[in-house]
Amino acid sequence: MFIGCQFSLYAMTNDYVELILDAVKGLQAREDLRVEADDLSTLIVGPSAAMFEAVRNAFVTAAKSGEHVVANVTFSRGCPGEPDDPLCTPEEPEAGGARLPDPRTTSKTGVTAAAQFAVYPLGISDYMNAIAEEIERSREAGTFTGGKHFCSRLDDDCGPIFATLHAAFEKAGERAGHAVVTASVSANSPSGADQT
Amino acid sequence: MFIGCQFSLYAMTNDYVELILDAVKGLQAREDLRVEADDLSTLIVGPSAAMFEAVRNAFVTAAKSGEHVVANVTFSRGCPGEPDDPLCTPEEPEAGGARLPDPRTTSKTGVTAAAQFAVYPLGISDYMNAIAEEIERSREAGTFTGGKHFCSRLDDDCGPIFATLHAAFEKAGERAGHAVVTASVSANSPSGADQT
Repeated sequence: MFIGCQFSLYAMTNDYVELILDAVKGLQAREDLRVEADDLSTLIVGPSAAMFEAVRNAFVTAAKSGEHVVANVTFSRGCPGEPDDPLCTPEEPEAGGARLPDPRTTSKTGVTAAAQFAVYPLGISDYMNAIAEEIERSREAGTFTGGKHFCSRLDDDCGPIFATLHAAFEKAGERAGHAVVTASVSANSPSGADQT
Repeated sequence: MFIGCQFSLYAMTNDYVELILDAVKGLQAREDLRVEADDLSTLIVGPSAAMFEAVRNAFVTAAKSGEHVVANVTFSRGCPGEPDDPLCTPEEPEAGGARLPDPRTTSKTGVTAAAQFAVYPLGISDYMNAIAEEIERSREAGTFTGGKHFCSRLDDDCGPIFATLHAAFEKAGERAGHAVVTASVSANSPSGADQT
C-alpha cells in the first residue's frame, strides 16, 4: 500500500516565506515520514495516522501566527501506479487493529478552522454510496456544517476537523482499493464564519 | 448535465483582499455563469469553455500584480447528486460540435505559471487508462513537465496550461459520466521554476 499526500500551505501575508518554513520545520525532522518539497507542494509518505498528525500540526502552527492561512491537501491511498512502500505500514499495528479516529473524542488544538472536503473512491461503481457514508459520518461527528456543490463543509477545532478527514480516508479505503480525499482548511479568514 | 467548479485564489501579500477582489470582479459581472462566493471558495456554474476562461482570466489578473498567487480549483461534471442545469448547455453548439481546446494553438496570456493537476473519472473500473490518456495528451501538448505522486506537473504560459486542464476535463467526461479535475496553479513563486 502506498499512502501519502501532496500538501500546500498558503499564508496571506508579506512574511509568508518565514511563516510557512517555520510551520513545516517539524515535518522535515520526522523519521517516520518521507518528505519531499518543491515549489508547488510538499509530498508526505507514510502511515496515515502520522501523516494526518503532521499535516494538522503544520497547519495549526501556521494558524497560530494569527495570519489568514489555508492548507490545500490531496490525500491518496492505494494508487495502482505507485510502488508498495514499507514506510506506509507501521511495523507494530496498534492493539485491536487500526483505530478509526473519532472527531468527538479527539484532542482539541485550540485553533478553529473552516474546511471543505471531497472523497473520491476510485474504480468502483458504488462510489456515490461510499461518499454519502462519509458525509453522514461527519454529520454524526458534529463537524459537518453544510453541503456545497462538489464538497462538504466542516467548521470546528482543527482536532475534530482533521480527525473527520482521516476517518473518511480510512473508510473510503475500505470500500475502494484506491481512494483520494481532497481538503482545503482555512483559519483566520477576514470573511470567515470563525471570525463571528 | 451539471458543470461547475469550486475556485479559490490565494495571494501571499498583506494586500490580498484587494488583490483577490480585483481579480474576481469580472466574474460577478458575467451573465453566462452562475457565481456564488463564500469564505472558502467561489462556485462557478456554466458551460465548460466559459468556466475555464473565467477562472484563467481571474488567475491571470491576479498574477499580473507580480505577487505570488495560487489558484486551487476543483472542476466537476456530471455529478449524480446535482440537478441538471440548462445554464451548462450552451443554446447554440459551436459549428462542428464542441471543439476540444488545443494547448498548442491556444492564445498566450503573457503570464507563465507552474501547475499540478489530477483527473478522477468516477464510477468506472477502467479509470487508470483514462487518467493515463490525459497525462499523455499533456505530454503531446508540451505543457507536461513531470510526473509527481498523485498528480502531474505543467509549466507554461497560462493559456496552454488552462487549455490542458480543459481538454482533460472534456475527455475524461467522455469516458466517465462523472469526472473531476483538480488543479493548483502558481505564479511568481520565489522558489518557482518560472523564476529561473
